[in-house]
Amino acid sequence: MTERLVLHEDSRSGNCYKVRLTAALVGLPLERREYDIMKGETRTPDFLANVNANGRIPVLQVGDRFIPESNAACHYLADGSKLIPTDRLDHADMLRWMFWEQYNHEPNIATLRFWMNEVGIEQLSGAQREQMPIKRKAGNEALKLMDEHLSGRDWFVGDGVTLADLCLFAYTHVADEADFDLELYGNVVRWMEQIMTLPEFVPMEA
Amino acid sequence: MTERLVLHEDSRSGNCYKVRLTAALVGLPLERREYDIMKGETRTPDFLANVNANGRIPVLQVGDRFIPESNAACHYLADGSKLIPTDRLDHADMLRWMFWEQYNHEPNIATLRFWMNEVGIEQLSGAQREQMPIKRKAGNEALKLMDEHLSGRDWFVGDGVTLADLCLFAYTHVADEADFDLELYGNVVRWMEQIMTLPEFVPMEA
Repeated sequence: MTERLVLHEDSRSGNCYKVRLTAALVGLPLERREYDIMKGETRTPDFLANVNANGRIPVLQVGDRFIPESNAACHYLADGSKLIPTDRLDHADMLRWMFWEQYNHEPNIATLRFWMNEVGIEQLSGAQREQMPIKRKAGNEALKLMDEHLSGRDWFVGDGVTLADLCLFAYTHVADEADFDLELYGNVVRWMEQIMTLPEFVPMEA
Repeated sequence: MTERLVLHEDSRSGNCYKVRLTAALVGLPLERREYDIMKGETRTPDFLANVNANGRIPVLQVGDRFIPESNAACHYLADGSKLIPTDRLDHADMLRWMFWEQYNHEPNIATLRFWMNEVGIEQLSGAQREQMPIKRKAGNEALKLMDEHLSGRDWFVGDGVTLADLCLFAYTHVADEADFDLELYGNVVRWMEQIMTLPEFVPMEA
């Protein structure tokens, strides 16, 4: 790949970290451009017109094209690597966990982390406060489902690390910042340790 | 493909319809097994143990394996067909729209349709009622973003129909059932008409 790769990101976001972690594991260098979502830097007319009309990060820029949605950006970077199974059914099963992450995991665990650490509980709307116990319950259900799936398995799909693991790791490994007790989920803890000892692993803060 | 394909579904669900529409476009026959989600038929011990631990439909059964998550099931069925671009960047761009659909479109438009038509507004919890105007606003923003993307384009990605179109069509074409006014989105209406005139098209009720 000879095209320039630029990650438009807020480095505190787990969705952005997924893309950096995937790039590290496949050995692709990324330029990084930082935006502060708390200052509205992804909602400016310039950002909406030229980077992402949806006003969100991460966005992976490949030459003059832009790929929003973290899991799609990871798929682009990992295409053709061992991180994406070549078997048709395993590929779909990997995507299953990635869609599940965006529907059942991220809106609960990542949103609570964002509300508690970036927005601040005092600043939440009444409707947001009312969602907190609902998201706490759904977040714990997501962690429990992961824990049960990992019983007797090392990785989410097949016999090796895939994008399913990386995309689920991003917000799971910081779930304690949203007061989730990861010690309740022993298989998840074991699986996280495996990911953190991969030779090409990079931490979120890197 | 010689393996038996069984769709575990509730046929009122747009997520299930996506899978049937994709199967029709690629010419693969599906057996169908109906569950009534309003009667809890996807939360029974048998369903959780043998079909999907997440308690949701659709699930595509391929031989003795089960693929939950509608968009992953569509990817399995369409793999190797014209519905999935072979270009690496176009493939990722297609997935971008599919992830966007599950994050920004379905939780707003499909959830409002479900609450208004299946659950009934009188039966909603206070927290759900408080979410209604939030989901209405976000749903209209999603339709507007689609409309703007389709300005001067026939399809979401590249020059032909892909899974991005089919997955977005499923709940868009019934958004009026949740009182969204589709006439406000002329490009979306034109795009829906194109999909409905594809030779292999099947309606949701089929």
